[in-house]
Amino acid sequence: MTKSTRADNRFVMPRRVEFVDTDMAGIVHFTAFFRYMETAEHEMFRTLGLSLVDMQSDPPLGWPRVSCGFDFLRPLRYQDAFEVHIGVAHISRSSITYEADIMRDGKTLARGHSTSACCAVGPGSEIRPVPIPDEIRAKLQHYLISTPRTEPKQSGKTMEGR
Amino acid sequence: MTKSTRADNRFVMPRRVEFVDTDMAGIVHFTAFFRYMETAEHEMFRTLGLSLVDMQSDPPLGWPRVSCGFDFLRPLRYQDAFEVHIGVAHISRSSITYEADIMRDGKTLARGHSTSACCAVGPGSEIRPVPIPDEIRAKLQHYLISTPRTEPKQSGKTMEGR
Amino acid sequence: MTKSTRADNRFVMPRRVEFVDTDMAGIVHFTAFFRYMETAEHEMFRTLGLSLVDMQSDPPLGWPRVSCGFDFLRPLRYQDAFEVHIGVAHISRSSITYEADIMRDGKTLARGHSTSACCAVGPGSEIRPVPIPDEIRAKLQHYLISTPRTEPKQSGKTMEGR
Amino acid sequence: MTKSTRADNRFVMPRRVEFVDTDMAGIVHFTAFFRYMETAEHEMFRTLGLSLVDMQSDPPLGWPRVSCGFDFLRPLRYQDAFEVHIGVAHISRSSITYEADIMRDGKTLARGHSTSACCAVGPGSEIRPVPIPDEIRAKLQHYLISTPRTEPKQSGKTMEGR
Repeated sequence: MTKSTRADNRFVMPRRVEFVDTDMAGIVHFTAFFRYMETAEHEMFRTLGLSLVDMQSDPPLGWPRVSCGFDFLRPLRYQDAFEVHIGVAHISRSSITYEADIMRDGKTLARGHSTSACCAVGPGSEIRPVPIPDEIRAKLQHYLISTPRTEPKQSGKTMEGR
Repeated sequence: MTKSTRADNRFVMPRRVEFVDTDMAGIVHFTAFFRYMETAEHEMFRTLGLSLVDMQSDPPLGWPRVSCGFDFLRPLRYQDAFEVHIGVAHISRSSITYEADIMRDGKTLARGHSTSACCAVGPGSEIRPVPIPDEIRAKLQHYLISTPRTEPKQSGKTMEGR
Repeated sequence: MTKSTRADNRFVMPRRVEFVDTDMAGIVHFTAFFRYMETAEHEMFRTLGLSLVDMQSDPPLGWPRVSCGFDFLRPLRYQDAFEVHIGVAHISRSSITYEADIMRDGKTLARGHSTSACCAVGPGSEIRPVPIPDEIRAKLQHYLISTPRTEPKQSGKTMEGR
Repeated sequence: MTKSTRADNRFVMPRRVEFVDTDMAGIVHFTAFFRYMETAEHEMFRTLGLSLVDMQSDPPLGWPRVSCGFDFLRPLRYQDAFEVHIGVAHISRSSITYEADIMRDGKTLARGHSTSACCAVGPGSEIRPVPIPDEIRAKLQHYLISTPRTEPKQSGKTMEGR
């Protein structure tokens, strides 16, 4: 059973590898794992009635990435069915850290993490970090991971505007 | 001054942001930074008369990624001219760790790292780690970074075959 | 009514626009439409118990693209739910032409077509056109479009080996 | 000599195939050809002191694609050096049609075409076709192809707003 090892309240997104995701080495190109993690992040937000792109709020909010990474354990190949298991590891004043496992047949293929900063988008499309709105903070508790692998990010380490 | 700390023998690859690299937030999508780093890695090898895809050697060699990540400091935008500064941080028995800075006008926009394992590709396209050939190891000294940011990877932590 | 003209036995693949598919113009980048069409093509094959990448057959078979195109009528945006309606317009000796409509809420957003040649992949990964195997030809009748928009391709116009 | 066969005033953009452009068939994925054509289009504009994304003009102008396509003659592979030869085939009231050849060692690998509509971007990011500004029309004469392959598009066939 794939999910039984997952005491955490992670969001699980099933997918299948597409041909365009492969490279000449015959396996999925590593950048596809980052796309899979991002798509799961957006879908997780959607299940909470939230959106990672909210141009209707005042000011408009976006979530530029502060850092992210992956450890790759096993390759993924054309037509493989796999799952992204994503959850919230940390929530600070203005940033969220996710952890995501790429799994196939109950085995972990890759372990990812990603931190995004909640930013207000100005009229000239310049961006600056703002506190995460309470509604978002409250709803994200739903997917909080009990035993995260990663350390919380230091405060002060956020994306600078241009 | 960001650049003055760069006494290192890094390979520098200049590029310009393409339209397709942007997303609806008006900035370069984070996955593009990983592509930039990978392309610089391949070009760095090429300057040494090496190739990261060597199907002529016996057995054929490839370099699947073991881990990689980026810290993003400032956004990159459409038509921006930028540079990837890449060098070799660590060489172990069968893996290489690179560090790459994305820079624009002398400022660091993002700091990346990536570790790849030297793998033999079998007839069924299964892969297994092998020692890095001496010629490659010797040539890569040319781009060795004197003061790497990252720690060397533990041995034993390599990509498993499928 | 757009949909009433669709008596055809097309394969319908539902999808949702991902963030990475957008560009700084705020709409889906046009290359994503080609990926959607390709993915639908692969899924259509899968429903027939076939695969567009068959390295087990002797010789291995692949389907390099001979030509393709899209007419774009309306934009597609972040999080839009849409469908790819794909079918087989023509089958010649060694090539297949597909037609695909990208639809949202019953409206056609884009009309695509694509022709691929059935090719044998040689040991040096060189490729040459071969007749489409009878089994594939027979199964594809299932998705044959009764009134294709496109003309059949001239014979002789196939991909040359390198 | 590669360029001697080109009586036309095309813009020539040299490039090298990146690893990420390849797929498991060992050749460049067909969507990369569309990216190459688009990048050449943007660079061609830049040589004229123009930009395909002009958010400073009033109203802001963009160029959504109306249609595009490629005929693929020969494959392109990892590390291949190639050129995009692009020029203007037709200019109508509010759209431009380009033709682009992908060439390697003087041989044509693929023939592409693309039509974009000059559109004003409204405050809600809705778009509507507008006449091409005279300055742009005049400057583009520089890259006008004397003997285009494609027919001019019918008027009236433009992208509809959403």
